[in-house]
Amino acid sequence: MAEVARDIDARFDALLDVPADPRADLYRAMRHAAIGGGKRLRPLLVQATAQLFAVDRDCAGRAGLAIECIHVYSLIHDDLPAMDDDDMRHGKPAAHIAFGEATAILAGDCLHALAFDVLADPDTHADPFVRVELIADLARASGPNGMAGGQMMDLEAEKSSFDLPTVTRLQAMKTGALIAAAVEAGAILGRLPIEGRTGLRGYARDLGLAFQIADDILDVEGDQALAGKALRKDEAAGKETFLSLLGLDRAREQLRLLVDQAIAHLHAYGAEADLLRDIARFVMARDH
Amino acid sequence: MAEVARDIDARFDALLDVPADPRADLYRAMRHAAIGGGKRLRPLLVQATAQLFAVDRDCAGRAGLAIECIHVYSLIHDDLPAMDDDDMRHGKPAAHIAFGEATAILAGDCLHALAFDVLADPDTHADPFVRVELIADLARASGPNGMAGGQMMDLEAEKSSFDLPTVTRLQAMKTGALIAAAVEAGAILGRLPIEGRTGLRGYARDLGLAFQIADDILDVEGDQALAGKALRKDEAAGKETFLSLLGLDRAREQLRLLVDQAIAHLHAYGAEADLLRDIARFVMARDH
Repeated sequence: MAEVARDIDARFDALLDVPADPRADLYRAMRHAAIGGGKRLRPLLVQATAQLFAVDRDCAGRAGLAIECIHVYSLIHDDLPAMDDDDMRHGKPAAHIAFGEATAILAGDCLHALAFDVLADPDTHADPFVRVELIADLARASGPNGMAGGQMMDLEAEKSSFDLPTVTRLQAMKTGALIAAAVEAGAILGRLPIEGRTGLRGYARDLGLAFQIADDILDVEGDQALAGKALRKDEAAGKETFLSLLGLDRAREQLRLLVDQAIAHLHAYGAEADLLRDIARFVMARDH
Repeated sequence: MAEVARDIDARFDALLDVPADPRADLYRAMRHAAIGGGKRLRPLLVQATAQLFAVDRDCAGRAGLAIECIHVYSLIHDDLPAMDDDDMRHGKPAAHIAFGEATAILAGDCLHALAFDVLADPDTHADPFVRVELIADLARASGPNGMAGGQMMDLEAEKSSFDLPTVTRLQAMKTGALIAAAVEAGAILGRLPIEGRTGLRGYARDLGLAFQIADDILDVEGDQALAGKALRKDEAAGKETFLSLLGLDRAREQLRLLVDQAIAHLHAYGAEADLLRDIARFVMARDH
């Protein structure tokens, strides 16, 4: 995990070299949001899945960078005053606090474009078919039927009282889609045929939901300083979550069940999938 | 022009079918911003360039749709209160006025993702290399070295006093890059080798600058009702433009020169490039 985090920091550092022109603050804002924060769960999932198929580490690193570009852009936009209005992220001021709203909006938009720029580059993979599959995967996962659509449902959650199936769908889109895209990217780089992806897709789906339930539990029980962001906002906003709908005990039980299920989906793989199994256990055990 | 506009409206209508779930307003906001407005100059440029090489009209239509997704997303985000703070666009309330800021931000983000979703689809072109080239072209043109970088420079223009070379670079990025990407997309679809693109690239560069000078002139001399948006904002914001730096007479002269130059770049083409020539003349003659 620390190795992937260092690798992603180095890739962002190279990608976001600050130009000596009026765009300097735009690049500083992207660097502020992108470098030195976060667990890099998604790039780790790309590497761990790609390792099953002995994919070149640099290819997997570039695909992980692209997915992380999307993740970071979504955090910048989600933190805006008009959205979740959060002042802190990864223990630092949010981008819009440090650089102003306009620069933050543009920094998010630029990271969004850079994700596809990185994937379209022949350095990511020599075969254009692999590149275009990675792009299709990421565009679907981040658009209205994935992450951004889930974020829209999340905004509506403040006004309506969602039931468990609706919250499950919301979270499968808002956080699940990009987690699934990371696992899928590893499979695409490994040239695994669609028919062979069922186990990995099941793993990713259960992992994504487990991640969100753990996040809901941390939002209520977690340490704000460790989290580096404001906690206990869902309840204040009157949003239904897995925790509010299930209660703490059943949420914990469901989390354990999903992690077991995620690991069970990997039965066709041997020791080469131990990193994926460890990631599932980490999602349950993490404290921030 | 009217034919391409109808085609793009129909494509947006099919792409943005409103779902019966909590994302309905997100889709309504995208439709509000995307359908029934604008000159569709960029999709027209894709079609006009693709026609030189007898490209399938549907392929060119899909590539034009993707570029227009980017153009519309940029208008939604540019109109936000934190950015240019415009209430009107295409004679209608801006997306953030009609649907609120949060929905407008997400609608822009979704159109951004959909652009790459459309291009990655095999329906756009059977050859993955062509699709990935279109994607690379659009990602570069819309990111920090293109449209979004130009928008950042434009924000800085309120604080600094830019000289003519800086304003030229700003506009080449802010509006020129996407206009150039449209012409380039036609060349990519036509499988024109890079060495053969010099004339078309020269045409696109001069056309982009001409378009911006015409826009600056319209901003000062135009009819606000016809424009469907607020005019005369640059002067109020203290921004240097081609007009403020050159004066009206020299700006008009420069516009004529650029249009002549753009047309001269097409000397290798016969009557098949007449539509591109007409577009250049239209850019000079348009009243909104």
